[in-house]
Amino acid sequence: MGSVIGVVGGGQLARMMIPPAVALGVELRVLAEIDGASAALAATAVGDYRDAATVLGFAADVDVVTFDHEHVPQDVLAHLVGAGIPVRPRPEALEVAQDKLVMRRRLAALGIPVPVWAEVRDRDGLAAFLDANGGAAVVKTPKGGYDGKGVRIVRSADAADDWLATGAVLAEELVEFRRELAQLVARRPSGDVAAWPLAETVQRDGVCAEVTAPAPGAGKLSDEARDLAEAIASGLDVTGVLAVELFETTEGRLLVNELAMRPHNSGHWTIEGAVTSQFEQHLRAVLDLPLGDTSSHSPVSVMVNVLGGPAGATMPDRYPDALAAHPDVKFHSYGKTSRPGRKVGHVTATGTNLDEVRARARAAAAFFDA
Amino acid sequence: MGSVIGVVGGGQLARMMIPPAVALGVELRVLAEIDGASAALAATAVGDYRDAATVLGFAADVDVVTFDHEHVPQDVLAHLVGAGIPVRPRPEALEVAQDKLVMRRRLAALGIPVPVWAEVRDRDGLAAFLDANGGAAVVKTPKGGYDGKGVRIVRSADAADDWLATGAVLAEELVEFRRELAQLVARRPSGDVAAWPLAETVQRDGVCAEVTAPAPGAGKLSDEARDLAEAIASGLDVTGVLAVELFETTEGRLLVNELAMRPHNSGHWTIEGAVTSQFEQHLRAVLDLPLGDTSSHSPVSVMVNVLGGPAGATMPDRYPDALAAHPDVKFHSYGKTSRPGRKVGHVTATGTNLDEVRARARAAAAFFDA
Repeated sequence: MGSVIGVVGGGQLARMMIPPAVALGVELRVLAEIDGASAALAATAVGDYRDAATVLGFAADVDVVTFDHEHVPQDVLAHLVGAGIPVRPRPEALEVAQDKLVMRRRLAALGIPVPVWAEVRDRDGLAAFLDANGGAAVVKTPKGGYDGKGVRIVRSADAADDWLATGAVLAEELVEFRRELAQLVARRPSGDVAAWPLAETVQRDGVCAEVTAPAPGAGKLSDEARDLAEAIASGLDVTGVLAVELFETTEGRLLVNELAMRPHNSGHWTIEGAVTSQFEQHLRAVLDLPLGDTSSHSPVSVMVNVLGGPAGATMPDRYPDALAAHPDVKFHSYGKTSRPGRKVGHVTATGTNLDEVRARARAAAAFFDA
Repeated sequence: MGSVIGVVGGGQLARMMIPPAVALGVELRVLAEIDGASAALAATAVGDYRDAATVLGFAADVDVVTFDHEHVPQDVLAHLVGAGIPVRPRPEALEVAQDKLVMRRRLAALGIPVPVWAEVRDRDGLAAFLDANGGAAVVKTPKGGYDGKGVRIVRSADAADDWLATGAVLAEELVEFRRELAQLVARRPSGDVAAWPLAETVQRDGVCAEVTAPAPGAGKLSDEARDLAEAIASGLDVTGVLAVELFETTEGRLLVNELAMRPHNSGHWTIEGAVTSQFEQHLRAVLDLPLGDTSSHSPVSVMVNVLGGPAGATMPDRYPDALAAHPDVKFHSYGKTSRPGRKVGHVTATGTNLDEVRARARAAAAFFDA
């Protein structure tokens, strides 16, 4: 196939595909939501990804379409497929990442361990689920949630009435976990799968805050996580990068929490920390090129998100102090204006001693606090 | 200062500045020579860099101007300075890289070891130089030479008549050397200098073919080279990346051969091999930001140029085989069409065993032979 990749969505994930596209000499074209999007440098169109004509027009001359996010409606994807344009991941796979109820059904059918869950259609259904699960549940809207949005912990049957008014929701047990983990893999259409080392993730207010790779002391969980992610990638016929977010329960079991079928925040450390970054690998995978080595460069990598960003300033405004203090930390700014809670950039530190590397990454990120 | 960098010239050096600009969130604007230049993605203007109005128009809204090559005429640079636009490196420094006679004079004045040389104005002058230097000389046109062009080995006084008809030339002794080395440093306007490990370079037909870093068995020469390059950077008030090409003579001395005041082929290995690449460092330096760590990631890095490229094809056309054979090699394609001798890309391998890494890099590059 050719080597022109169309990316629907102009956020930081599309932006971070630009460097490896430049290096490999493959052409990246982005359909951005707005002028001045994070990936504006590669934008060849600006428009609404929910509009089939817009997406079809954008994709007319590309060799493959892939995504910055999972929100492109299935009917738009069907138009692309109908026009003979390769879509990766395929719409049937992407649906599993778009709809949490579909995800739970498909993972259960594959025998993948997941939290206790139920599709809940009304207050009575939620009451029954709460009764059966210790009086607490995590309720999620099937579609459109991200970064903590569309997720709610409930302890009474009427606490999801607003969401239930518009349709069924996913109810899950409140998992008691030691920590959260993320297993990133990539799969190409011909079937090859490559897995990066398992990562430990820390969320704050439902948003990824910090990632450590490899996950400290993971032991045999690393193999289990890799096997799970590879089974999911193959079982769902995923192409491109797949991120599997996991709970490590207090009993030491792995349960799949969420899936993302695109480069993922839990894999930003791979830019500096791995021989092949998740962004380069995604390009390779969607072009059905051989996958790159996923080994770590360093014994430990720690990525810390810059959330919110400096008030009334940009990340580069703070570079004179930040770069002077941390010549060995790598700084990433997404070209976004600061806004409370917004992911505006990240930093990655690598090294040999976990505590030292983590402290360094946190200190570097702190230069961009409001 | 702000963070908009204007780069005059749209070749692969400007192209390779794009990834770190995207990562750091600084804006890169390129004045390209042609549509479809290697750095076209960042091109905001297309025009002649020898035309002052073109360059001034391009540079009107940037915070600093820097370069993909050294060919911008001094009168054009003077217009930029006159308009109050910071130019880095400064025209006075850049002139030393533009004119080999000026370079020899300035380096001699700084006490830097260079080959025996003379400014030669006519056939008698060349005859005298040949008599004094064993009957052989390297003759160079003061300006415009690169990649072996404008350089000639002569053994008779009439062998440079064509060049002498247009002006003085530089004559140099034919240095007997063990090998060629390159010392890369970066300097910011405030004076800080950072040096990468010394590299060994191999030229074929006057063109860089292969680079190994650190230079094997360099021992104390590494310190000498670093001291020399830092003295040159400071002595000439260079800002940005400075590449110092060196001979290691058969007696084990270092002599400065050439200077380049921009990212340089001898530093492409730093993209994967060093904590901070020469391209990121150049952006930092010209913005007067703190310089990054120049340590090596790996015990050894080997870069091999792809010269010419596959006949009637592009580098990406060969990726299915090349990437499959070398999942751990990093491939760079400059988006150029193949042409005999043209630099169309490079590959870099890293590892611990010099022979193994070198063999791997050469084998990977060979996939793109005509």
